[in-house]
Amino acid sequence: MPTGLLFNHAVIIGAGLIGSSLARALRENGLASKIGGYDQSPDNLARALELGVIDWAAKDFAEVVSNADLIIVATPLGAISDVFEQIDAHVTPGVIIIDVGSAKGAVVDAAASCSKHNHIVPCHPVAGTEQSGPDAGFAALFKDRWCIITPLDRPAPEYQAAVEKVSALWRGVGSHVEMMDAAHHDLALAVTSHLPHLIAFTLVGAADDLETVSESEIIKYSAGGFRDFTRIAASDPVMWRDVFLNNKDAVLEVLGRFTEELSLLQRAIRWSDGEALEKIFARGSTIRRAIVDAGQETEAPNFGRDTQK
Amino acid sequence: MPTGLLFNHAVIIGAGLIGSSLARALRENGLASKIGGYDQSPDNLARALELGVIDWAAKDFAEVVSNADLIIVATPLGAISDVFEQIDAHVTPGVIIIDVGSAKGAVVDAAASCSKHNHIVPCHPVAGTEQSGPDAGFAALFKDRWCIITPLDRPAPEYQAAVEKVSALWRGVGSHVEMMDAAHHDLALAVTSHLPHLIAFTLVGAADDLETVSESEIIKYSAGGFRDFTRIAASDPVMWRDVFLNNKDAVLEVLGRFTEELSLLQRAIRWSDGEALEKIFARGSTIRRAIVDAGQETEAPNFGRDTQK
Repeated sequence: MPTGLLFNHAVIIGAGLIGSSLARALRENGLASKIGGYDQSPDNLARALELGVIDWAAKDFAEVVSNADLIIVATPLGAISDVFEQIDAHVTPGVIIIDVGSAKGAVVDAAASCSKHNHIVPCHPVAGTEQSGPDAGFAALFKDRWCIITPLDRPAPEYQAAVEKVSALWRGVGSHVEMMDAAHHDLALAVTSHLPHLIAFTLVGAADDLETVSESEIIKYSAGGFRDFTRIAASDPVMWRDVFLNNKDAVLEVLGRFTEELSLLQRAIRWSDGEALEKIFARGSTIRRAIVDAGQETEAPNFGRDTQK
Repeated sequence: MPTGLLFNHAVIIGAGLIGSSLARALRENGLASKIGGYDQSPDNLARALELGVIDWAAKDFAEVVSNADLIIVATPLGAISDVFEQIDAHVTPGVIIIDVGSAKGAVVDAAASCSKHNHIVPCHPVAGTEQSGPDAGFAALFKDRWCIITPLDRPAPEYQAAVEKVSALWRGVGSHVEMMDAAHHDLALAVTSHLPHLIAFTLVGAADDLETVSESEIIKYSAGGFRDFTRIAASDPVMWRDVFLNNKDAVLEVLGRFTEELSLLQRAIRWSDGEALEKIFARGSTIRRAIVDAGQETEAPNFGRDTQK
């Protein structure tokens, strides 16, 4: 293989935001020489081909796995177990299979029932936008973002080599790589991603239900804070349904913590306890600064300033 | 006065984000010929003068009001009542006084005890960033944003003329103007601004309290959704303390609605009710699209895309 090339033939299953972005990133960074694709939706698949995101489109699973040395499962979490089974029925031993699901315990469990001669490496690139579909993808999505790998418990040298190769893949598309066990991943992401989405969906839903404030008012005055929530509340409903179904315990745990904190604030408001409110509110800027300093925030610090003449 | 000029001599009380932005916007749009300032913090006041945001700095309230035909009260809400009293003790009859507070019932109440020969016009420009202080202000902050005016119940033609002049001021700095009563304002903003801030402060606080997930992990994986909340959770704690103390009833009401909705989602997760989750989640993108279409969102639709290669 030419220098830099990691895979001869990669195939994405699921040509949505993440799958199509990773295909673009593999190509742009010269990490795979040929890229195929499969999608449950014939429209998505045709569009990915038209956009040049993939070189060829598979018509079934047997075709997906023929000759591939990397299979990227980029479906919603709920489909991963079935997809693993299908791959398992057709795959050549030794192929590397990665997924990009936002919860990892369920993926590790699904992998356990697959034959051991396939190298399944569960991954979670912590990156995304509120858009979906093949048109929404872009090669730089993973740049400067973290990708978490939760390897299976397989000490075999071939499996460890596969994990190393997958790490090189993510570094090759610009990500930082971290390894951890699936349970810790699921808890950390429940805090940093799943709960924020749940809260955003809830807030948008609650606003939608009010009969005293019109939708047009909500839109007009959204610059007061509401709009910050709508970006993530516009994310793919099916993807997020599956995240919550597959990371129930951790989400319910951090949700409990959130609810406790919210009750404290509610009480402080009811009793006009200004001191307690100010103390709780003061914590926000420290963590914001840390996020901006760590390069995990790409917005201009003065939101809206960009648009001034 | 030259064409376009609305005021001869404006004075801002409070040279923070909103006050200093409005001073800049008045100057840039040629709406006031001279701009003075006063701030409880001598540092803020000196800085505003140094930046050229104001032409002169007042040393006390008597000086603030001398010769001004427009007084802009841009302090945290908790100070407004005192500031009105001070102005009232010194002001020349007929001057126009506006505030920019985020809750309006409390301002209307405070105005009621002031002498009737001053024209107090309560305003709320629905615009802001998470920054504070005179350096954070910029003239375009109000452009394409809504400003809500909640006029006092004073049918006198001089008062109505003052309200008209204040509307012209906000249109002059690029805002759309809407009139409503203070109670409706406080409910609408509880939904679109106060509750979102409360939730963001709560989420950031809850994450800060977890012993199982480290702060460095929260920062690393914040691109998963958490960072969207940290922008508004970094807002000025004193300003927000005062908002909640001054809009208690409306905030507690919408918070109740939010908590109900959250319980529904929690139940759907606990019982693995995917259908209910998907249905609730699907509402988000509709409202997001409406906000983007209405020009109330200035971010690139593909968050992060700007930074690619």
